[in-house]
Amino acid sequence: MSGFLKEFFEPRGVALVGATRTPGFGYGIPLMLKGQGWGERLYLVNPSATELHGMKVYPRVADVPDPVDLAVVIVGAAAVPGALNEIGARGIRSVVIESAGFAEAGDEGRALQEKALAVAREHGIRVIGPNCVGVVNTKNRFTTVEIIEEALQPGNVGIIAQSGVFGNVLLDGLHERGLHVAKAVTLGNRMDVNECDVLDYLRHDPDTRVIMMYLEGAADGRRLIETLGRVTRDKPVLVLKSGRTGAGRAAAASHTGSMSGEDALYDAAFAQSGAIRAQSLEELLGFARVFATQPLPAGPRLGVVTSSGSLGALAADAAVSAGLELPALSAATAQKMREGAPGWMNVKNPLDVGPSGLYQKAVAAMLQDPAVDMVLAVAIIPFAVVRQFKPFGLTPKTWFGDLASIRALAPHKPFALCAVGHSEFIADMASLSGPSIPLFTSPEPAARALAALWKHQRR
Amino acid sequence: MSGFLKEFFEPRGVALVGATRTPGFGYGIPLMLKGQGWGERLYLVNPSATELHGMKVYPRVADVPDPVDLAVVIVGAAAVPGALNEIGARGIRSVVIESAGFAEAGDEGRALQEKALAVAREHGIRVIGPNCVGVVNTKNRFTTVEIIEEALQPGNVGIIAQSGVFGNVLLDGLHERGLHVAKAVTLGNRMDVNECDVLDYLRHDPDTRVIMMYLEGAADGRRLIETLGRVTRDKPVLVLKSGRTGAGRAAAASHTGSMSGEDALYDAAFAQSGAIRAQSLEELLGFARVFATQPLPAGPRLGVVTSSGSLGALAADAAVSAGLELPALSAATAQKMREGAPGWMNVKNPLDVGPSGLYQKAVAAMLQDPAVDMVLAVAIIPFAVVRQFKPFGLTPKTWFGDLASIRALAPHKPFALCAVGHSEFIADMASLSGPSIPLFTSPEPAARALAALWKHQRR
Repeated sequence: MSGFLKEFFEPRGVALVGATRTPGFGYGIPLMLKGQGWGERLYLVNPSATELHGMKVYPRVADVPDPVDLAVVIVGAAAVPGALNEIGARGIRSVVIESAGFAEAGDEGRALQEKALAVAREHGIRVIGPNCVGVVNTKNRFTTVEIIEEALQPGNVGIIAQSGVFGNVLLDGLHERGLHVAKAVTLGNRMDVNECDVLDYLRHDPDTRVIMMYLEGAADGRRLIETLGRVTRDKPVLVLKSGRTGAGRAAAASHTGSMSGEDALYDAAFAQSGAIRAQSLEELLGFARVFATQPLPAGPRLGVVTSSGSLGALAADAAVSAGLELPALSAATAQKMREGAPGWMNVKNPLDVGPSGLYQKAVAAMLQDPAVDMVLAVAIIPFAVVRQFKPFGLTPKTWFGDLASIRALAPHKPFALCAVGHSEFIADMASLSGPSIPLFTSPEPAARALAALWKHQRR
Repeated sequence: MSGFLKEFFEPRGVALVGATRTPGFGYGIPLMLKGQGWGERLYLVNPSATELHGMKVYPRVADVPDPVDLAVVIVGAAAVPGALNEIGARGIRSVVIESAGFAEAGDEGRALQEKALAVAREHGIRVIGPNCVGVVNTKNRFTTVEIIEEALQPGNVGIIAQSGVFGNVLLDGLHERGLHVAKAVTLGNRMDVNECDVLDYLRHDPDTRVIMMYLEGAADGRRLIETLGRVTRDKPVLVLKSGRTGAGRAAAASHTGSMSGEDALYDAAFAQSGAIRAQSLEELLGFARVFATQPLPAGPRLGVVTSSGSLGALAADAAVSAGLELPALSAATAQKMREGAPGWMNVKNPLDVGPSGLYQKAVAAMLQDPAVDMVLAVAIIPFAVVRQFKPFGLTPKTWFGDLASIRALAPHKPFALCAVGHSEFIADMASLSGPSIPLFTSPEPAARALAALWKHQRR
């Protein structure tokens, strides 16, 4: 039902209406696309130019050669309805409108948006936008927005963002957290295509494993619940929902009454439909990291191994509050751990091994314990010790083992690592754990992310 | 009433009982203290050694010369009561016991701890520990634990941590967040000195501006409420409380009932006594950063300036949920902002200036608006743009202004900055804002930290 979106992500040819020599989207996007190998399939349109970045500029959309599936519109808002008319006449049925100055800009803009929509409907055109930055498809390196090279590394994350800038926020920072995008869409004013269309499309996209969505409000509440209910049976959908209008109301009224009421409705809708709601941007990113790299757990039973009792306790608190259980270790695991353990070590869950040297053994045993569905390893060692022993060849691997290999003992169980303290220590732990293990730098977010896996799986 | 703690932080001389050549505390702490200039005031004790790190080793505590105010005990648990007897006989009245193997290690250890306490009482000795790493005083570079050089930079944060490792966690990471310690204490098993003694001491410590406390349980609930009620009238106390025992119970029972009950009591106690409870380690650190650098607000009215509507909305949501208000701008400020603003810009709070170029003006106007008690500036610009314009000399300062100077327009109002996205952009923003402005990398924690300032001030 949303197969029509294929033309947005995999156009055979693209008309860019509003290419221009002045700095901005009309200058930068052609350069970006040319750099990604799209020069031959990109047709720039501007009645008052003939050449840009060494590419021919066509005076009218009608002049653009075949094949062309998609138009990207960057002209001033007032010129958009006319451009849509030309685009429709040329037989193009997919359009990204990046121009701003529509419904978000008041009554006049709202009228203009309705006019544009009428033109689009007349021609059977499907529109993403206006007031957005369109799409990114890392697989074919197609993008209707200037993004950094690093963000084009193909991955398994699907992004749906209502706001263009927010899309950029994610695209700029994800790769540094080990997350890579499959497809991203910014929706803007949603005059036609909305989050439901994209959710259904990403549901069938083989490259997308987890969907991150930022919403300021549902375009159609009932349809969103239905769509989420369908999509979350196949793929996890992580939602960050702000109350843009709610906060505006709150700002005016200096009270939160209506906002929390509305927010509770969203909470219920997400819970009912199986979407996982993140409470903050950081939490959204943390959730995405475990869904992008970890299997789903068979049950809610978390094993915690730690070299700090305090951090283990904080992790346990967060895990239990988020719906996980901390089971007792199975008799065999407990027996195994008691052998060779110093007298002060309490063999329980969380398993605080302190400076016993048993960290590796404990993580392996916990991962292999049939009483445990997933494992959180908390690693901390005073950095004065790390620094002191580094010259003697002792590294975090000495203290904590080859975590990537140990983790492979139970590839079917989710595993996360939490390393706290000095940035150099955390960087060492990141190399040690590698890309298959999500690394958190404090215990609570790690525990909540693992809980999100179970929340999705339980459904 | 807790003036006796002075000897722990400013001893004229220190006896270290259990200095040894084998790796560990007994080897490392003497080296650490010597490196910090304490060699002349440090008296190592070990009956079976004569020299360590070029320092004389005394066979018995009785041999240690005057003046000596403090003993640090690192011998095996079983030898501690005997050591306390020697220490008491030598006239030393302040002792840090770092040795483990007491109440935390079961019934036998508990009996040993009671025995040690009896000896201490007999001699009128005050004890920090056992099972701790003692104290740090950055002003005189005195420390009973090996910590990294960076952690000894003097600052205005007081730390009370029940667990030794947790103290290290903080000491390893704080300087990277612009936080610097005045005094730190790890309490361990609290056989004598507890968090209340230290709270009262730090209350009167002129170097301590904000107190961070990590607790696993109150030593004496009623006294803690009384003490906090007294201390928080003078200084903010930020508390992170884990339910170590609660999590243990929860682990066994796989249910959270009793734990949440207990936790609710702590919540109420902290609220009643004016302490600010952090919900996570990250939140504790975020709170500390605003308290360490910002003035207290005159009221709950937050002004938000942003270059991203989405992030502004997320900040507003978090602020209002945490008890702040987002007032309408005063007429004069609104008028000032409307002049020269593009048509698409909505002059309201949050004030989303988008790419208008009015960011600096907006932050200045917001800071000077009498309707606003504190300001959160959210800065984001797609990193592709930053990278593209850098060769032309355009930097974050071009887009966002000299924030350190702008902030100085209203030094009496709390100010925080949130920069989101690429690490290089965040690093640029950190240099731009400088040490007087706390920089957050996502909007919700920034808003909640400002709300914590108001929560304390309201009291």
